[in-house]
Amino acid sequence: MGFAHVLNSGQFQLPDLQQLFKLSDKIRAYNDTKDGLMFLQGLLPHKRAMLFFSQPSTRTFLSFQSACHILGMHTSEIRDPSTSSEKKGETIEDSLRTFSSYVDLIIMRSPTPGLCERIAAMLDNTKSAVPIINAGSGPDEHPTQALLDLYTLERSFKEQGGLAGKTICMVGDLKRGRTVRSLSLLLTHYKDVTIIFCSPPEFKIASDLRTRLEKAKHISFIETTNFQDSIAAADAIYMTRIQDEYDALDPSLQQIDTTKFNLTAAHLPQLKTTCKILHPMPRRKELDTKIDADPRATYWQQQRNGMWIRTAIIANLMGVADVI
Amino acid sequence: MGFAHVLNSGQFQLPDLQQLFKLSDKIRAYNDTKDGLMFLQGLLPHKRAMLFFSQPSTRTFLSFQSACHILGMHTSEIRDPSTSSEKKGETIEDSLRTFSSYVDLIIMRSPTPGLCERIAAMLDNTKSAVPIINAGSGPDEHPTQALLDLYTLERSFKEQGGLAGKTICMVGDLKRGRTVRSLSLLLTHYKDVTIIFCSPPEFKIASDLRTRLEKAKHISFIETTNFQDSIAAADAIYMTRIQDEYDALDPSLQQIDTTKFNLTAAHLPQLKTTCKILHPMPRRKELDTKIDADPRATYWQQQRNGMWIRTAIIANLMGVADVI
Amino acid sequence: MGFAHVLNSGQFQLPDLQQLFKLSDKIRAYNDTKDGLMFLQGLLPHKRAMLFFSQPSTRTFLSFQSACHILGMHTSEIRDPSTSSEKKGETIEDSLRTFSSYVDLIIMRSPTPGLCERIAAMLDNTKSAVPIINAGSGPDEHPTQALLDLYTLERSFKEQGGLAGKTICMVGDLKRGRTVRSLSLLLTHYKDVTIIFCSPPEFKIASDLRTRLEKAKHISFIETTNFQDSIAAADAIYMTRIQDEYDALDPSLQQIDTTKFNLTAAHLPQLKTTCKILHPMPRRKELDTKIDADPRATYWQQQRNGMWIRTAIIANLMGVADVI
Repeated sequence: MGFAHVLNSGQFQLPDLQQLFKLSDKIRAYNDTKDGLMFLQGLLPHKRAMLFFSQPSTRTFLSFQSACHILGMHTSEIRDPSTSSEKKGETIEDSLRTFSSYVDLIIMRSPTPGLCERIAAMLDNTKSAVPIINAGSGPDEHPTQALLDLYTLERSFKEQGGLAGKTICMVGDLKRGRTVRSLSLLLTHYKDVTIIFCSPPEFKIASDLRTRLEKAKHISFIETTNFQDSIAAADAIYMTRIQDEYDALDPSLQQIDTTKFNLTAAHLPQLKTTCKILHPMPRRKELDTKIDADPRATYWQQQRNGMWIRTAIIANLMGVADVI
Repeated sequence: MGFAHVLNSGQFQLPDLQQLFKLSDKIRAYNDTKDGLMFLQGLLPHKRAMLFFSQPSTRTFLSFQSACHILGMHTSEIRDPSTSSEKKGETIEDSLRTFSSYVDLIIMRSPTPGLCERIAAMLDNTKSAVPIINAGSGPDEHPTQALLDLYTLERSFKEQGGLAGKTICMVGDLKRGRTVRSLSLLLTHYKDVTIIFCSPPEFKIASDLRTRLEKAKHISFIETTNFQDSIAAADAIYMTRIQDEYDALDPSLQQIDTTKFNLTAAHLPQLKTTCKILHPMPRRKELDTKIDADPRATYWQQQRNGMWIRTAIIANLMGVADVI
Repeated sequence: MGFAHVLNSGQFQLPDLQQLFKLSDKIRAYNDTKDGLMFLQGLLPHKRAMLFFSQPSTRTFLSFQSACHILGMHTSEIRDPSTSSEKKGETIEDSLRTFSSYVDLIIMRSPTPGLCERIAAMLDNTKSAVPIINAGSGPDEHPTQALLDLYTLERSFKEQGGLAGKTICMVGDLKRGRTVRSLSLLLTHYKDVTIIFCSPPEFKIASDLRTRLEKAKHISFIETTNFQDSIAAADAIYMTRIQDEYDALDPSLQQIDTTKFNLTAAHLPQLKTTCKILHPMPRRKELDTKIDADPRATYWQQQRNGMWIRTAIIANLMGVADVI
């Protein structure tokens, strides 16, 4: 296998996921020794990646850049679009076609839904097509976040028979958080997963997601406002923050009291002893820092997993997955 | 040979140009294999370059950075002068002398005419002189752009007996575009080139350029407003954009209708079948995107040539041209 | 030895200083040949450093980045905190714990006193602790600046029997310049050093520094406003600039005439022939550029020493000091 681009989480089927997760595991193992790290370094030192981030995201940026560096790639970056020739009236298509003349891979994040698809299609029609990775496109897609979340769940349940049959509780702003959407859809590839969507009524999942999950064969889900029961039943809890950067669009949402849906140290005794607590980060009050010391806190490993899965994706796109 | 600095396009004589273009050709050939790329990587991994861009230019920045990376160099960058200690009242001379203590090459772009020359002269008086490359100094000089344009023309005519005797049509804002000035002067090194300068009367070439071209031995030129005849006669068309970032200085220029000088797909049947279409980019309406698919569109290769010629220049300055 | 972090200049005892300076000397020697440089490159190519500069400082930034590159490390950077997820309400602790999942070393500069200590302590409680280097924390600490100043003095006096017994004259804003504070305290590790603090009365050293120096065994100091006598008596002059970025806090300080404390070319005949002139840079009017050509001007070497000492510090923290 080997993808041409990574544009949305819908492009991954179960075998793709399994191959990527296996590759991530291998890369992580190489990390344990200098020899292993030097082997990875030697894979792509002759290749150059560009990170084009017209929407800021330190976390995603740094984990992608580190992923490039792990494979020995040189990186260039644009993090402030005002330094770009867009100022001189250039279209984004021309800008990215230009970048594609200089580098071998473009990792892009933008506030514009569908932009990555459009750029990938445009480049595919040229002689200098390079792979595009969607590192987040506004409220639309963030496929590598979905992959790292799923990878973290898979690894978490390795000694408990895998993801199949598990109950995942998603909490918070289920309406606007794109990670909830993407992760839920990826979970349909696994057998008999149950999702508990737990949120204030105003932040319930969008109707189109509900419809898609209803049609899916292998998944069952419930929607509830009962936080206590939800977290007690969960094999994993996926906390999310309120996406209030979008609140300007609907000021009434600012008034909603979400404190009942905050996970605090006081809740810990109610959780299963094997429960895994995830969060795509950044967090605010919804996830108490006192939980950090609990062995069930899995969100720091989750972040590091972001680097491994992104390294695996780049290795796949650049054609070196087979030698790892 | 081996330059001390690259400061202006006037410093290059015909043998210099031929050596640089040959070097660029070789570097491009190495690019075809991993072994070739690894050979280039191995040339300067122990050297560090700094890109000091106090005037934004994504295109030039990225092609220079990629050129450094091709040769294995580490790069540092300053793209926003407000992060610099100029804020604390430091002179630009002190800043650049400081940078020269840390790196082996400085690539600088600034809005200030003559700044590169001044810095190069200052550094030459110190024990830690490092090469300076002028990556554009306001409306003044942009020597590597002129070199990449000329290199693109040379390569374009390789199978047609070379540049000598060819007719180059330059279109657009010939008054203020510095690339037109530099390229025209470099063309005087070739035998019997004819330049057609085609523009609205308000955008004719500056009188000092006219005088210099009149004195040159090997070149003839005409000035015209007849777009149709000009493009039909051309072996290569060099389109340029209206430099309206300078219009604030002369608002009357904003009123000029330049649409008659736009190259559109409708013009393609009138061009020679071997005609090459160039543009220093970024483009706006003066060059129709529908032309991109035409085999005569040469501007994407032209951009990539910018990376090769810059790699050649760096190799020359850093003393590794001979081993390539 | 081998530090866990570099947080403040008070953590260094004489053997630490001597080991670091010896290491710096060795690193500098490797710099003379391509083989030497390639050896250094080979030490940490599998390691990644992050430069987190939420307070701008080009000089410190670039010398640290070059230090990383000398050892072959890949670097990531944050120079504008507004690109960070702090915008989304993340704490600085969460941000830095995140970064520590992606890289092997964090070099941080911030306007917040004590932040580095706080972050280092936080990370030490996690499984993924990485070394922290304080690259300046507001008016508080800037340990690597103090080390480079001291290293420059040590090297300067190598052929004059070392630092012991020498007279160092510090001039300028002794009240607010943190480099004066740190360097003075480090000088207490050497035998019989005399410090002349020469400044306008309003810029005398802070009382806590005075107290600490009075308690120190091996150092004597005087405070004076007599510039002429001070510079004539000095084995080294350490010029500093007025820290007027803090003047908003005390506007009366803006009225003080400091011109009597400026070192100009006219003073050169009064200095000892072996006197060394240092300045932490950036300079303004307090240090005449005409002095640059005098062999006693040591501030350019001082800047380059910043790169060597920082390379030594990184080598120490990353566990490769022993093989250099």
